[in-house]
Amino acid sequence: MPSVEKVLNEIDSGIEASVERLFSLLRIKSISADPQYAADCRAAAEWCAGTLSEIGIEAKARDTVGHPMVVGHYDGAGAGAPHVLFYGHYDVQPVDPLDLWERNPFEPAVVEVNGEKRIAARGSADDKGQLMTFVEAARAWMAVDGRLPVNLTVLLEGEEESASPSMIPFLTENTAELKADVALVCDTNMWDRQTPAITVMLRGLVYEEVIVQAASHDLHSGYYGGAARNPIHVLAKILADLHDESGRVTLPGFYDGVSEISPEQKAQWATLGFDEAAFFKEIGLKSPAGEKGYSTLEQIWSRPTAEVNGVVGGYTGEGAKTVIPAKASAKVSFRLVGEQDPEAIRKSFRAFVAERMPADCKATFLSHGGDRAVSQPSDSPWVKKAQRALSQEWGREAVPIAMGGSIPIVTQFKSILGMDALMVGFGLEDDRIHSPNEKYNLASFHRGTRSWARVLAAIAE
Amino acid sequence: MPSVEKVLNEIDSGIEASVERLFSLLRIKSISADPQYAADCRAAAEWCAGTLSEIGIEAKARDTVGHPMVVGHYDGAGAGAPHVLFYGHYDVQPVDPLDLWERNPFEPAVVEVNGEKRIAARGSADDKGQLMTFVEAARAWMAVDGRLPVNLTVLLEGEEESASPSMIPFLTENTAELKADVALVCDTNMWDRQTPAITVMLRGLVYEEVIVQAASHDLHSGYYGGAARNPIHVLAKILADLHDESGRVTLPGFYDGVSEISPEQKAQWATLGFDEAAFFKEIGLKSPAGEKGYSTLEQIWSRPTAEVNGVVGGYTGEGAKTVIPAKASAKVSFRLVGEQDPEAIRKSFRAFVAERMPADCKATFLSHGGDRAVSQPSDSPWVKKAQRALSQEWGREAVPIAMGGSIPIVTQFKSILGMDALMVGFGLEDDRIHSPNEKYNLASFHRGTRSWARVLAAIAE
Repeated sequence: MPSVEKVLNEIDSGIEASVERLFSLLRIKSISADPQYAADCRAAAEWCAGTLSEIGIEAKARDTVGHPMVVGHYDGAGAGAPHVLFYGHYDVQPVDPLDLWERNPFEPAVVEVNGEKRIAARGSADDKGQLMTFVEAARAWMAVDGRLPVNLTVLLEGEEESASPSMIPFLTENTAELKADVALVCDTNMWDRQTPAITVMLRGLVYEEVIVQAASHDLHSGYYGGAARNPIHVLAKILADLHDESGRVTLPGFYDGVSEISPEQKAQWATLGFDEAAFFKEIGLKSPAGEKGYSTLEQIWSRPTAEVNGVVGGYTGEGAKTVIPAKASAKVSFRLVGEQDPEAIRKSFRAFVAERMPADCKATFLSHGGDRAVSQPSDSPWVKKAQRALSQEWGREAVPIAMGGSIPIVTQFKSILGMDALMVGFGLEDDRIHSPNEKYNLASFHRGTRSWARVLAAIAE
Repeated sequence: MPSVEKVLNEIDSGIEASVERLFSLLRIKSISADPQYAADCRAAAEWCAGTLSEIGIEAKARDTVGHPMVVGHYDGAGAGAPHVLFYGHYDVQPVDPLDLWERNPFEPAVVEVNGEKRIAARGSADDKGQLMTFVEAARAWMAVDGRLPVNLTVLLEGEEESASPSMIPFLTENTAELKADVALVCDTNMWDRQTPAITVMLRGLVYEEVIVQAASHDLHSGYYGGAARNPIHVLAKILADLHDESGRVTLPGFYDGVSEISPEQKAQWATLGFDEAAFFKEIGLKSPAGEKGYSTLEQIWSRPTAEVNGVVGGYTGEGAKTVIPAKASAKVSFRLVGEQDPEAIRKSFRAFVAERMPADCKATFLSHGGDRAVSQPSDSPWVKKAQRALSQEWGREAVPIAMGGSIPIVTQFKSILGMDALMVGFGLEDDRIHSPNEKYNLASFHRGTRSWARVLAAIAE
């Protein structure tokens, strides 16, 4: 094995070409939640398979009932070498509201803001930029050494932003092909611009949509107002009832399986030096609005939540319309921690809604997925190896942290393939993923690529 | 003056041509609330002016800052004859949700349902069909007699469905030109298919839009959920707080100026034989959902209301998006009765919202109009004349009724021109105005035209 330094030099000298390749992927409008972009999702999958194959990782876009999975294999490291599975996703979030974007979300560019170079585009951070750090690290290893230091399976999905309906069947049907010693998942953040992190706790998620129907058609609010049931009123009451005065979620049984974090964990989080004021300032706010009695870090990392992600009913265009709508609907999601059971919470929510239906009202539900929370022992050998490699690259101790978002694949790797996942990523809190003006720092991309080159070496040692 | 019978015969023999003329007007997409239909509104105004002029009522479409006003004049009845102003509106409601329409809303047709002929189109009842009953009656008088029995001013507006922003300035600037002995307003309903009605009570309306803003941009609900303020939660709580358990509106001072109806009025309403079961069945409901302790007729005629007409925030497309939106908004309207003051209620609503704004949240407001309730003495000579003419046409005593909707123009005729309004219309409760599949019965159109021919004669007597 050559010295890692040569691989790092290769990455440094090829960074412009690496960015160009990332741009090609960012230009593809692979919005998985919206059926009209299905062909774009396929194009992104084909692009990924082609790129992996070009490097020497034989890959194909494989059909599912939804968007394709990209699977690649490399076994050139020999029988004694470790075998890792790398996971990422090539799909992206919808871009609305489009008028808040400063640039076209699918015309990537490097822009300079406050002396910092940023790759601006939908998917730049979540997750195309992140997955390309690994792909470019593998490319550099191949260029310098003609081989990788580990055997490798790559799995890139195209439904991560739309509840991954094909993932469980795909993992179940291809268990033998996909099982590896450990999974590498690149969809998380650094602690801050200087400090690399390994994510060892993730919240789970239950996502429900509820439609409340009253009259058979929209009504004139003058003729019927005061007598006819208004489903917006019914829905507003339900949504208002989801939290009590202290910000706690009121669903019966919601806190079953939720425990307080340990004093040790609390102490380690305290050493992180979380800058609460900066955290809120970045998003135009000043203070925590969540569950009383918990710090902001606890509110976003170790406490469960209920959030209304969308609501719509009646006339929402310009001007006024005096209508009592026939129906109103909301999308509601719950972040889970500890041992909370997604199915129990879904049931509790549906019962909560049903018992608040007055006469002449009917609720129907759509499910958009559900996954348990995940936590990894912070002393696992994989965590230790990655920690060492990351600390070398960044010149600062890599820290174990939690993340408030969900990566259902991590749960599924464990439950279906019996495989732990090492979550290493180079995103930053201000990357505006899922929002207008998403970006990924050029430093995240460049040093992220260098980090993976080092992690691959550390794993092989 | 010839016998009214000749005019009625002229109407009967010309009914097909009358329907064809109405169809021409119905084909014009004069949706006033949506700026993209501005040219269609102008086309409808020009069509009306042309049609009136063709009959002999010299008319023009006159510019406003919004959609044009159509004003026509006829003084051929001579100096001693009464002078009436006829009012109608050529604009229509938006047509969404379009997928619930059985036919294209702007391709009118006569369809037969349950043995009843119906004119199906947006605006067929509200208000193009209604205004054309008067125009066709005038046409028949002209054809038979070469003149009308009364002097006439016609005023047709194009902003009735979008809060009439130009009306008050227009009435104020043209007071002398528009003042008449009485206004005839054709935008109301019959009591039922057999029983003509004169509307002597209308509710007023205050229409507000509120936008609640929290973060500076949409947030990922995983990273920020539990800590960042969600404006949908704030808005839902406000909307839920608008009513108490008994269905009463909770705004401070809301019931100032509201009085119970008199025992006499209650007794007269009892004689109407209101069919509550049929009223609710028509709209797919079973029971009154409004203020406890009041009959359904009271709930829709003589009690004030608060209705949320529209709400939107966050992701409302297909599938799931884990977002905490930066803002959420609602359109809220209040129906007013008695002496309720629109400005006081607007202020009370804004204060109600403002005092419910938590830290990091800001509310902004848009006003979409406000008008007091109206009631007419049921023993006015104009009401009596119309009652006699309508009773002759329909063979059944015309009844004085109330209407839960608002006709702000009636308030403005009184306050600006000092003129009472006689509200006579031929709509039916099942016309689905403001909803998909609006219709106007052919009988409403035909006998409505005959009714106006008789009312004009009665007024001239």
